Amino acid sequence: MLHLVGLGLADETDITVRGLEIVKRAERVYLEAYTSILLVDKAKLEAFYGRPVIEADRELVESGSDEILAGADKADIVFLVVGDPFGATTHTDLVLRARELGIATNVVPNASIMSGIGCTGLQLYNFGQTVSMVFFTETWKPSSFYDRVRENAQLGLHTLVLLDIKVKEPSLENLARGRRIFEPPRYMTVAQCAAQMLETEAERKEGVCNPDNLAVGAARVGAPDQKIVAGTLQELADSDLGAPLHSLVLLGRRTHDLERDYIREFAVNQATFDASYQKGYGASS
Amino acid sequence: MLHLVGLGLADETDITVRGLEIVKRAERVYLEAYTSILLVDKAKLEAFYGRPVIEADRELVESGSDEILAGADKADIVFLVVGDPFGATTHTDLVLRARELGIATNVVPNASIMSGIGCTGLQLYNFGQTVSMVFFTETWKPSSFYDRVRENAQLGLHTLVLLDIKVKEPSLENLARGRRIFEPPRYMTVAQCAAQMLETEAERKEGVCNPDNLAVGAARVGAPDQKIVAGTLQELADSDLGAPLHSLVLLGRRTHDLERDYIREFAVNQATFDASYQKGYGASS
Repeated sequence: MLHLVGLGLADETDITVRGLEIVKRAERVYLEAYTSILLVDKAKLEAFYGRPVIEADRELVESGSDEILAGADKADIVFLVVGDPFGATTHTDLVLRARELGIATNVVPNASIMSGIGCTGLQLYNFGQTVSMVFFTETWKPSSFYDRVRENAQLGLHTLVLLDIKVKEPSLENLARGRRIFEPPRYMTVAQCAAQMLETEAERKEGVCNPDNLAVGAARVGAPDQKIVAGTLQELADSDLGAPLHSLVLLGRRTHDLERDYIREFAVNQATFDASYQKGYGASS
Repeated sequence: MLHLVGLGLADETDITVRGLEIVKRAERVYLEAYTSILLVDKAKLEAFYGRPVIEADRELVESGSDEILAGADKADIVFLVVGDPFGATTHTDLVLRARELGIATNVVPNASIMSGIGCTGLQLYNFGQTVSMVFFTETWKPSSFYDRVRENAQLGLHTLVLLDIKVKEPSLENLARGRRIFEPPRYMTVAQCAAQMLETEAERKEGVCNPDNLAVGAARVGAPDQKIVAGTLQELADSDLGAPLHSLVLLGRRTHDLERDYIREFAVNQATFDASYQKGYGASS
């Protein structure tokens, strides 16, 4: 059987008791290590599980799924995923491939940033569709996120923005030369995301990501040193939330008083927060 | 410190290792037992934790929060929540009250139906806002859900519908007489939800919840006997997914091929599924 086991958000102790039991008795254990990361490394997981873990990079998962699935018709094979197993499309692919091969699958859910973002005090049923923000380059600044944010904003809904990570990516130069040498990992910060949203606003000028629009930044959700800040997009572009992983929520105008009270405690500056809030947020807006 | 610990979705083994450690060493442990339920009872939890658990009903949480928080400035008090701690507004209230009293709080995230619904194969970033469906009565059939679903549908997005549960609710007659006698618990089924959506469509006639619109029903997400069915709303109104808890997703038209392939396997009837799908679903619609 193929078991997709969610690891949750922060460290090795965020696995569920059900998940840990499966990991301990499985024949092989893979760790999906490119769409998200835990805040601890593989060695820490191996020590906690008391067994080896095989790192599965994008290449192995996307081209070598049959290698992962080998023997899963008879033995238990585990595929560990940071957050919840269904957070990324890739894993749906793996289950579909298992189905084709007649291999049974079992999923062990866990916390995902999609629900964990509730730690900000923003109500999950006030969120619209989730968007992703990729690292802009000199020549590639995709703004499709802006259209999705606008759709949410028109309904008064919050938007969760998931921030790009680059792990084991070859540089363009090494890619061209066919060398398997990787760039150091990069994790987008709340400040970088806010700056890219402002850059896109300056380009598109539709008033979706204004400098005085309110947003909430969250870092290391679920970890003991979790950090949350609230402020204008301009303030967040100047913020520093420390180590990864970061996420950002652009506030929708259909905000409940309870949500305001909760996030106001995290404001970079309560005066600018109140001023921006009064300009157009709140349930009656 | 007040610890809000998520229990996940199915049984006692869905708690995280981090959460279990906190439960074992805490002074008092409360179980929030009215906005959702695990598929096992309190006695099973107590046996697993090796300690007593205090059931917290709506009355205690909403009017007796200071009783829950008593001593939390010095000792560890745990408040167990099915799913993720921030799934329901009530718990935000409890944290705000703790803040007022100067009591530190710690949240242990877990799987929520908001992310667990990914087990259907539908991509979480294709969902719009989540809605709730309450039990209709002869005189009270609130249709605000219909407006939210329409907003999502206009953007081509899926809608997760969370289904009503009634636990420890006094009957109207007993309420009027001031008697603390409760009705037997009731959990809405996928079939009841689909029927109420069709009833509202017949009333509103805006084409948001047509009998041949596609939907996915999910029961006991995360449990070994989890069940998923896909079909038209009419088919789901005639379905039987067994024991609670149930959830329903109304499919948005911006469906990806990979999502279709995944849910088609769960179709009540693949011929009607395909016929409805071809009428207007798919990424290009």
